[in-house]
Amino acid sequence: MQILGHFIHGDRTDIQENVRTHPVYNPALGTEVRRVALASREDVNEAVQIAQEAFPAWRDTTPLKRARILFRFKELLEANADRLVRAIVEEHGKVWEDAQGELGRGIEVVEYACGALELLKGEHNRNVGPGIDSWSEFPPLGVVAGITPFNFPVMVPMWMFPMALACGNCFILKPSEKDPSAALILAELLREAGLPDGVFNVVNGDKEAVDALLDHPDVQAISFVGSTPIAEYIYQRGSAQGKRVQALGGAKNHAVVMPDADLDAAASALMGAAFGSCGERCMAISVVVAIGNATADALIERLQPQIEALRIGQGSRRGLDMGPVISAEHKQKIISYIQAGETEGAELICDGRQHPMQKESEGFFLGGTLFDQVTADMRIYREEIFGPVLCVVRVSHLEEAIALINAHEFGNGTCIFTQSGSQAHYFSDRVQIGMVGINVPLPVPVACQSFGGWKRSLFGDLYAYGPDAVRFYTRRKTLTQRWAPPAGSAQFAFPGNG
Amino acid sequence: MQILGHFIHGDRTDIQENVRTHPVYNPALGTEVRRVALASREDVNEAVQIAQEAFPAWRDTTPLKRARILFRFKELLEANADRLVRAIVEEHGKVWEDAQGELGRGIEVVEYACGALELLKGEHNRNVGPGIDSWSEFPPLGVVAGITPFNFPVMVPMWMFPMALACGNCFILKPSEKDPSAALILAELLREAGLPDGVFNVVNGDKEAVDALLDHPDVQAISFVGSTPIAEYIYQRGSAQGKRVQALGGAKNHAVVMPDADLDAAASALMGAAFGSCGERCMAISVVVAIGNATADALIERLQPQIEALRIGQGSRRGLDMGPVISAEHKQKIISYIQAGETEGAELICDGRQHPMQKESEGFFLGGTLFDQVTADMRIYREEIFGPVLCVVRVSHLEEAIALINAHEFGNGTCIFTQSGSQAHYFSDRVQIGMVGINVPLPVPVACQSFGGWKRSLFGDLYAYGPDAVRFYTRRKTLTQRWAPPAGSAQFAFPGNG
Amino acid sequence: MQILGHFIHGDRTDIQENVRTHPVYNPALGTEVRRVALASREDVNEAVQIAQEAFPAWRDTTPLKRARILFRFKELLEANADRLVRAIVEEHGKVWEDAQGELGRGIEVVEYACGALELLKGEHNRNVGPGIDSWSEFPPLGVVAGITPFNFPVMVPMWMFPMALACGNCFILKPSEKDPSAALILAELLREAGLPDGVFNVVNGDKEAVDALLDHPDVQAISFVGSTPIAEYIYQRGSAQGKRVQALGGAKNHAVVMPDADLDAAASALMGAAFGSCGERCMAISVVVAIGNATADALIERLQPQIEALRIGQGSRRGLDMGPVISAEHKQKIISYIQAGETEGAELICDGRQHPMQKESEGFFLGGTLFDQVTADMRIYREEIFGPVLCVVRVSHLEEAIALINAHEFGNGTCIFTQSGSQAHYFSDRVQIGMVGINVPLPVPVACQSFGGWKRSLFGDLYAYGPDAVRFYTRRKTLTQRWAPPAGSAQFAFPGNG
Amino acid sequence: MQILGHFIHGDRTDIQENVRTHPVYNPALGTEVRRVALASREDVNEAVQIAQEAFPAWRDTTPLKRARILFRFKELLEANADRLVRAIVEEHGKVWEDAQGELGRGIEVVEYACGALELLKGEHNRNVGPGIDSWSEFPPLGVVAGITPFNFPVMVPMWMFPMALACGNCFILKPSEKDPSAALILAELLREAGLPDGVFNVVNGDKEAVDALLDHPDVQAISFVGSTPIAEYIYQRGSAQGKRVQALGGAKNHAVVMPDADLDAAASALMGAAFGSCGERCMAISVVVAIGNATADALIERLQPQIEALRIGQGSRRGLDMGPVISAEHKQKIISYIQAGETEGAELICDGRQHPMQKESEGFFLGGTLFDQVTADMRIYREEIFGPVLCVVRVSHLEEAIALINAHEFGNGTCIFTQSGSQAHYFSDRVQIGMVGINVPLPVPVACQSFGGWKRSLFGDLYAYGPDAVRFYTRRKTLTQRWAPPAGSAQFAFPGNG
Repeated sequence: MQILGHFIHGDRTDIQENVRTHPVYNPALGTEVRRVALASREDVNEAVQIAQEAFPAWRDTTPLKRARILFRFKELLEANADRLVRAIVEEHGKVWEDAQGELGRGIEVVEYACGALELLKGEHNRNVGPGIDSWSEFPPLGVVAGITPFNFPVMVPMWMFPMALACGNCFILKPSEKDPSAALILAELLREAGLPDGVFNVVNGDKEAVDALLDHPDVQAISFVGSTPIAEYIYQRGSAQGKRVQALGGAKNHAVVMPDADLDAAASALMGAAFGSCGERCMAISVVVAIGNATADALIERLQPQIEALRIGQGSRRGLDMGPVISAEHKQKIISYIQAGETEGAELICDGRQHPMQKESEGFFLGGTLFDQVTADMRIYREEIFGPVLCVVRVSHLEEAIALINAHEFGNGTCIFTQSGSQAHYFSDRVQIGMVGINVPLPVPVACQSFGGWKRSLFGDLYAYGPDAVRFYTRRKTLTQRWAPPAGSAQFAFPGNG
Repeated sequence: MQILGHFIHGDRTDIQENVRTHPVYNPALGTEVRRVALASREDVNEAVQIAQEAFPAWRDTTPLKRARILFRFKELLEANADRLVRAIVEEHGKVWEDAQGELGRGIEVVEYACGALELLKGEHNRNVGPGIDSWSEFPPLGVVAGITPFNFPVMVPMWMFPMALACGNCFILKPSEKDPSAALILAELLREAGLPDGVFNVVNGDKEAVDALLDHPDVQAISFVGSTPIAEYIYQRGSAQGKRVQALGGAKNHAVVMPDADLDAAASALMGAAFGSCGERCMAISVVVAIGNATADALIERLQPQIEALRIGQGSRRGLDMGPVISAEHKQKIISYIQAGETEGAELICDGRQHPMQKESEGFFLGGTLFDQVTADMRIYREEIFGPVLCVVRVSHLEEAIALINAHEFGNGTCIFTQSGSQAHYFSDRVQIGMVGINVPLPVPVACQSFGGWKRSLFGDLYAYGPDAVRFYTRRKTLTQRWAPPAGSAQFAFPGNG
Repeated sequence: MQILGHFIHGDRTDIQENVRTHPVYNPALGTEVRRVALASREDVNEAVQIAQEAFPAWRDTTPLKRARILFRFKELLEANADRLVRAIVEEHGKVWEDAQGELGRGIEVVEYACGALELLKGEHNRNVGPGIDSWSEFPPLGVVAGITPFNFPVMVPMWMFPMALACGNCFILKPSEKDPSAALILAELLREAGLPDGVFNVVNGDKEAVDALLDHPDVQAISFVGSTPIAEYIYQRGSAQGKRVQALGGAKNHAVVMPDADLDAAASALMGAAFGSCGERCMAISVVVAIGNATADALIERLQPQIEALRIGQGSRRGLDMGPVISAEHKQKIISYIQAGETEGAELICDGRQHPMQKESEGFFLGGTLFDQVTADMRIYREEIFGPVLCVVRVSHLEEAIALINAHEFGNGTCIFTQSGSQAHYFSDRVQIGMVGINVPLPVPVACQSFGGWKRSLFGDLYAYGPDAVRFYTRRKTLTQRWAPPAGSAQFAFPGNG
Repeated sequence: MQILGHFIHGDRTDIQENVRTHPVYNPALGTEVRRVALASREDVNEAVQIAQEAFPAWRDTTPLKRARILFRFKELLEANADRLVRAIVEEHGKVWEDAQGELGRGIEVVEYACGALELLKGEHNRNVGPGIDSWSEFPPLGVVAGITPFNFPVMVPMWMFPMALACGNCFILKPSEKDPSAALILAELLREAGLPDGVFNVVNGDKEAVDALLDHPDVQAISFVGSTPIAEYIYQRGSAQGKRVQALGGAKNHAVVMPDADLDAAASALMGAAFGSCGERCMAISVVVAIGNATADALIERLQPQIEALRIGQGSRRGLDMGPVISAEHKQKIISYIQAGETEGAELICDGRQHPMQKESEGFFLGGTLFDQVTADMRIYREEIFGPVLCVVRVSHLEEAIALINAHEFGNGTCIFTQSGSQAHYFSDRVQIGMVGINVPLPVPVACQSFGGWKRSLFGDLYAYGPDAVRFYTRRKTLTQRWAPPAGSAQFAFPGNG
């Protein structure tokens, strides 16, 4: 069986004997398709050293030239789209069109990073004192690392490294060990685009590799996306080493549906937002907050048949809605949440366990689940399930919906469906959430804005991609300069200018 | 009788014998209260020369120090508010609280200009080529001039000169000859705030002064606010001299009222927007576009009694709604528009000519006028009346309202009253107007945005105050710098970086 | 003989009978190679109408999608580089590598325009009043036009249209009738990149076409690059029509050489800056201001042999320094300037008329000319020669050099060669020039800055490409929005917030 | 003896019986002048609760109104300058003019914060998808805290709270227990300026108060300035609680003096930078790196007599250069460093222990100390002394100086004295330091830039004051909004826009 190695200094590494490995599954088949090597601390240290050596030349490469490698990388991503999509579909299980969408959002960040020259502009002040100028520059940090989750094996790494590279850093990517192939393809395409060896490296691994990155003194910054407990661990351990860290964690994204909303449109939007990619998205909608029973009833009436009609299957086929979840363990965990929901008294409208694929396939399939009458004390409400399970909570007023959302530990995304300007504005102003959609179910910020949640959905102060990423991956340097006038030059200045 | 002179080189000028003068009225009394000297071309040339001589030192005064004079100016404006308000009320006629509001909006621009250090930041690019840096600076132009209208004798000059001064320019203000006193007070307060002599000058005058400013080779830029024919003249003549010009002209601002709007709130908002300052504002609402007859009827039902209840009188009293219009001639012109409206077939709901003050006072008073059934071919619709006359146009759909607005020659401001997010967004997207209000009747941009209309409401490309003013009052200078590495220094750069 | 037509609505136009035409030469051969149709006013009007019809859909195309057409355009420019370079070399005469450089600088603007999403960001202010938000948007103008000179048939159009298109405008290009082929190739590549028909159009022509563009009410803005008299005409006539205009004119760019400069490096830099492209560049160095006689002597000692060794020939060969000038007439004009220089008493060090190619070739060749002892009253100093003629002026001090430069009517570019931080800073601060190089002979701003000169080198207030182009090709719209809180919502705000 | 309490909810708190206290000295007299209460965890919790309650209304106060309170605060700071300066001088010991300078730099930050409206602008993208807009807003965090050092009892708090308040946060200041009076005066002036009660609070205290702030779940962010060990502790403990933290630590700022520098000017600049405020500044120059022995000798020749001539005394007198150090303990620590320097083999040129004031006064006085022949292994080089001790290190080349600086654990500030543009540029590019001066000995960034060092001089990613502070004290919220076109509206968009 094939063992995937790492990608260091411009090439895939050889597989060492007796290396620890981790199985990689095709979730739609339920079978192991290959294995991935797990880096030791020494492997990580080697990658960091290689990257550190590549840094001085990359730092001094002009932003224009760095951007041009990214322009070329974009072309290669488009030319190799099918190869990347196939890798995503095989190892993650999401359906073909969804994987295409993932790649597309990743490419948008590359496009944004192509504007390096614009994005790296510093601020220049002439005459802060008589004859004194001051300006800021934004040099890169050095070696930075990204630790990314299984659910977007292409997009989430591309939230990070295009920005980090454009800013002049060298990058170590530690992708999820569940679907590592895509990261290696990205590395190859970067090399083909002209990126110098050592500037971008992939280290596959588990907690040992993560800790090695967190502890290495030459790793200047850590970007992480995953669950909240791990995010918190990363933030604490990285910060304890004095590093800058941005750690994005879990979510429980609520969609508020007002009585005046276009309910057909809202239901249709919710279907994609809740069940797309089996709900394994940090921006997935997992709670619908219906304002009034009539709204709740009307929504459920629309959702139920659509959930039952979900086209589920192997993602390499076209035209499907949902593939399998990532693993057998994760499937069991989701099933146990469904059981908990029943036990806690929620009303089970659609039961994903009953889907034929769940029973018949070796793949890790589940149908869509819909709960009504969910309340804030239930585990299915409080915890992130990360599966195709949608909970309906019924409240009386918008104010109650806002209070509910603000009481939750997570603050990643939310949305409201309404036709009222007032309600939309009031909601977006009061809700303590980082990304807010108004009639937009998945308000993932566009590449020129930045991605991040509030409360326990994000640790750190700068968000992923967009303008925040430029600040995260650079270190401000401020210069103050005085050149005395040449001897004999005329003086126009007032004496004693401030 | 007192004759007001100019303010040049830090002081009021003496009145020359045989000087041409223009009467200044108290419009609430209908009597001449003083006269104002009209500058000859030589007077203007002298002011420009004084300003030109003051320029090198002011240019080299640090932005921080320039800003501190503006900080002090703000304090003095607040301390002298009554004096300024009294001057506005006496010569312009607007009511006390309205004059206070005018001053307040002017002060906001001063507050914005206090941020000179931030606003004048240039953009710095490290490493545009190997070892090459490039950045932009925004030095001032030199001597610039503002030509301002009677209707805001304090606010419109303060749209201009605080920004121009903060940027390091010297300024010549040519205020309206109808209400020149406030400008002279402003000049005195600037001097008291520590502005060096010659940096700010006031030249009173008429077309001779205007032409002298337009023609003078040392006047680098002209800012104008007034009527469209004069704005066009200023733009053409100033541009023909190679100057940069921003010329703001007339308006016919439409308020669209949708059936779903809060009609009480809309009617109340329209009262202030249409009749405040007798409609002598370039942002006044002069046309209501009611969507549907029911909306029109309901609006008129609310407007009529409020118009009849307008509290009209001498602005130096407190608690009034409306004072006189600016002059006897202007009053006659407005009356002739009312007559034209009747003749053209509009339905006269409220007739401002019937107001007791119109008939009994020597002041230039008129009551509020409301026309219904106005159509796009009538002169009262096509032309800017600049008086307390409100026209109701009835249309069937929002689309029709947008088409109506876009067909008008002016494009200054507009607003919509609605509760619908969709309608507000669609309207604001489609309407070809520079300043758009959503449930805001007078969408005058806040001081950190910029003021300007589209079509024949503005000639030029940069707007008044806000970020545009910084660009208008400065000239970009771009530096590209290469310092060869010192002999013997280490080289990290790739050969052949782009 | 081939007649080139126009490019309207996505295709080359047919050639009408009896159309007026203009010859296109290969300056290296001195022979006519084709002719170009000259548009009538009706032809222009048709192009404008086509563009106007294409505008609404292009305006509503998202910036992301517009940018992606430009990304694709960049790829096509690179793939078709040889074709474009060949067209430049054949019709303009510049040497191959120089034409490659021209294309490269044009592509940089396309790369910058690919950042449309970032560049078009408006400014958003939450809570400018209680519950009131305000923001600016930057919609496109509509149909805009560019009128471009012979000397950069690819680069100067690309200063304009990539930015205009990225902002959502439709564009009419009126290229020079001397070298029109490149513009038509660009139009074809834009179409191939996916640009909708009618969004970009090329109209070949002379003054009739120019005037038609200036007068057409649907052309919202004019960008021009050429000589100062024409720039001034364009600015005046365009402004008289109420349009926004940016008109870049002539130059007389001085290089100041301080005694402490690295004279070998300076001389080498001056060779390219003065004689590259035969000096037919608005940023060419045409005057060297040597500080002190020793500096002057040492410079001339270095320049003379390099001028005599210039490799001159047909640009389609590789490895040359200089090709022919653009036309027989222009060659005669340059020769007459050389004669004038002799007559006026300048010392002729190298005489370009003596070059063998001048005498033997049918092409419009001249050698490099170097004058010493040039003074400010001579025509060769005062006027823009636009040919391979370099004048040395000798002064005693930096202050004198600055005074000399500031007294010239033009203010495009300048540079200083020195090792002293003080002198570089003092010079760049005092010199009244738009683009300043410090040890950089051709300080053409990088694509993310903006290109423009001062004084009679530019009419208007916004420069070419870079951030200024975004403002020039968009019209600010400011929205102010109030959504009343929904009934029953909690109120936290202070009463009476400002 | 007076006991200073806290300032909570708009007033000074009563002193509880049995409260823990700490003595406050007048260092120039060496006597205790009052005591300060040390807050318990309960005291801190109460302050946080008060602030938390004040937050909703302050959050909803418009930026314009918040800024106007700061405008008024600036006026009050100027009017109360003597009172503040007196408090600084009495408790800290620095000389009068130096305390005035400190206040001035603090006021600059207030002035910058007055631009809240400009600084809080979000980024708005129209049409990120068809009919979809997206924008960012920057709401405040809630309650934030500042923990500040003894050496700038006015300026460092004002690096923090004006920015935090302008952004809409409530603030808890924990000033140094060594000089707490100034903070309480600031609190009173804020109240007088109109700040609502509870928005700004002062809690005096020691580690117990610090830990209470670090641990309190309602404290969203911590700003700290102090020594590196404490900064690291603050960063780790605050981050472990999931907070955002910026922690500024120690420094060892090197001044490089090149042989071509104006040595008189450099020596004069170094005197102020090394001995001003007894070197108790995080930007103080404590190491001179002389390039070449001749430079070193010439510098020492100039420094020695100036050090011996330092005017030392009680800061309340005018015209002095240096007051006492902060405490008896600190004086002993500095003396022990001087002893260590001697022991380690540095050459003691001036011995501050010999100053008469050191011997005769009860105050904590020391003269200026100058060491020559200092090497990188000595403790006086490696550690931050924070006293009037200047070390001269001799190296041969600029490259060696850069290597020396980059090897030090701190990276706060540095400067170079030279006349060479090349050397200045090369140095500033290569040196791994956050704030770089070129012929500027104390390159403290102006208020519109941001203050922060590299390496172990700063933990976190956003710096103090300036643009970084706006990002630090706000939390990005991104909205994505879709308003479907109203029924029946015209559609111009291409199908399938991206």
